[in-house]
Amino acid sequence: MRYELIKKDGNARLGRISINDSVFETPIFMPVGTQATVKMLSPEELIDAKSDIILSNTYHLWLRPGEEIVYKAGGLHKFMNYNKPILTDSGGYQVFSLAKPKDISEEGVKFKSHIDGSELFLSPEKSIEIQNKLGADIIMSFDECAPYPSTYEYMKESVERTLRWAERGKKVHNNKQALFGIVQGGEYEDLRKYSAIKTVEMDFDGYSIGGTSVGESKETMYKMIDYAIPYLPEDKTRYLMGVGDPIDILEAVERGIDIFDCVLPTRIARHGNALTRNGKINLRNLKYKEDFSSIEEDCDCYACKNYSKAYIRHLIMSKETLGGRLISIHNIRFLTRLMEDIRKSIKEDRFIEFKTEFLKNINEV
Amino acid sequence: MRYELIKKDGNARLGRISINDSVFETPIFMPVGTQATVKMLSPEELIDAKSDIILSNTYHLWLRPGEEIVYKAGGLHKFMNYNKPILTDSGGYQVFSLAKPKDISEEGVKFKSHIDGSELFLSPEKSIEIQNKLGADIIMSFDECAPYPSTYEYMKESVERTLRWAERGKKVHNNKQALFGIVQGGEYEDLRKYSAIKTVEMDFDGYSIGGTSVGESKETMYKMIDYAIPYLPEDKTRYLMGVGDPIDILEAVERGIDIFDCVLPTRIARHGNALTRNGKINLRNLKYKEDFSSIEEDCDCYACKNYSKAYIRHLIMSKETLGGRLISIHNIRFLTRLMEDIRKSIKEDRFIEFKTEFLKNINEV
Repeated sequence: MRYELIKKDGNARLGRISINDSVFETPIFMPVGTQATVKMLSPEELIDAKSDIILSNTYHLWLRPGEEIVYKAGGLHKFMNYNKPILTDSGGYQVFSLAKPKDISEEGVKFKSHIDGSELFLSPEKSIEIQNKLGADIIMSFDECAPYPSTYEYMKESVERTLRWAERGKKVHNNKQALFGIVQGGEYEDLRKYSAIKTVEMDFDGYSIGGTSVGESKETMYKMIDYAIPYLPEDKTRYLMGVGDPIDILEAVERGIDIFDCVLPTRIARHGNALTRNGKINLRNLKYKEDFSSIEEDCDCYACKNYSKAYIRHLIMSKETLGGRLISIHNIRFLTRLMEDIRKSIKEDRFIEFKTEFLKNINEV
Repeated sequence: MRYELIKKDGNARLGRISINDSVFETPIFMPVGTQATVKMLSPEELIDAKSDIILSNTYHLWLRPGEEIVYKAGGLHKFMNYNKPILTDSGGYQVFSLAKPKDISEEGVKFKSHIDGSELFLSPEKSIEIQNKLGADIIMSFDECAPYPSTYEYMKESVERTLRWAERGKKVHNNKQALFGIVQGGEYEDLRKYSAIKTVEMDFDGYSIGGTSVGESKETMYKMIDYAIPYLPEDKTRYLMGVGDPIDILEAVERGIDIFDCVLPTRIARHGNALTRNGKINLRNLKYKEDFSSIEEDCDCYACKNYSKAYIRHLIMSKETLGGRLISIHNIRFLTRLMEDIRKSIKEDRFIEFKTEFLKNINEV
């Protein structure tokens, strides 16, 4: 994996990632394919929505179908018939948020499966081993995603443990995949700085800012980024985990983030919510019953080119899966288009103007 | 609409239907798009699975979104973005099976909506008027689908009423769409004969055999066909409603049927069941966990060309909609491929051999 910084506009970065046979520009958004499928969509639909990279969840694939099955299938790309880059997370976030473990030791985390309640154990070595078997292009270090808020004392201990876990994971890694380190430290400035410096010292292929999207306010999240960014190298990718709200994306790009992922575009789609430049609209609303226009008239996605709001509303009201599928396609394309516009604005030294204009329209709704 | 009988092999018929801008050969199978969508599939996926015509349900579209919405959208084709032929049924079958009306009079049927319990009334004129607004290529007469079994006396009365209803519907029809008459008469030979002769006298664009798939045995269903077929003209299409089981299709083709429809291929797909030439298989079965072969190795559908049983099983077990979608594509292609093979065998005067061979393999499972 290679990251080239093409150009900066303030702290916003236009970059290029080359990995295996793929090349794409950043800032970029990754749709989430939790269980080796981006919900409701085929790989072709993702590519058609101009998605260049997706995220898949190690925790879910470990539990079902199991990393051995994916390995025997020839890896995640072959298993799910998707030949563009894939990033897998470490499983840490899911273990801490879904399984709510009581037993966190130096060795790793003991917890119960959210599917069948069976006792499971995840360690830094195990996480890397599973991710090696899954065979994504980019994999993540196993970290502790501490609850928010945590006391300074707990967070300090947690940051130290996450650093030791990162070291252990790196030691067993096969080095055929890019491996990212994760900066933790909660809302504490000195801990974020310390975590960033120490993680960078270990020399990873890219760096993620973790411990966000755990219930903190937007302002706190932006601070978490600000505290870490100055200590991350310019020649490596920076990834903000779990963030996909358009406003948050703009704020984070302004601070120097390159990669994002979030279930938001597909999750809200299944409930009839479509993203537009004027804000989120819910197609269940009666006012769309006879609205034969597209979700967004100037959008080039499959849904907007072929279907009306009235038809998609009918599908959603009738619980037909094509409805959620069409909105998912649109919402992903909405975000890939936003990222295209962001990259273009950085290229043309007008990122702040673009951001201001975008936020003005969003706020009008 | 024009039907040309190209060739017979016994009573099995190879035909050609030209309607509006489309031409396709019969015998043919129609996937069912109940609510203006074939469940889980896009129009492109239907076309890719070599489907040439679909059925949509008047009853469902009348209740939701309402025929006025579809009319304002420019008709069903435009509403659902599907430009191949569509047939709508009369709503009768759904009224009698879903709404279970207590009040059947000469005028029509009073019943309660299965969605919100509201009082509704459907008459022959109303059914045709709704179907005219929906704008399918082929529409159906409104008939009484009498329960099975019914007494001879009730069925006789019902057949007479259905004939009067057919006459009334014909009178208000816009004549821009092909209109089919429906033969009723239950399992009574003389009533089927009488219904066929009288319906044909009214001169419809095609004829359907109704009152099947209502709980009768396979043998009784085949008899219902046998009783009516001799009185149907050779130069018009014959449609057996609600039948999609491969064995029933073969038996009915042998008896001279041209068109079929059924929810079977898409309904069973959502529960993990795939149709194969060796019988139905359920992909939830543990034995497919590490089976990296396609559902059918020689199938040319999108699912078989790109995905393994192990992956589709994983999707079904994980409740991911892509699983049901892939099996739906395969099951529809399975039936369109069966119909291709049937047509080829009639062309080559070996329909019975084909049928015998097909049934032998199916029974091996």
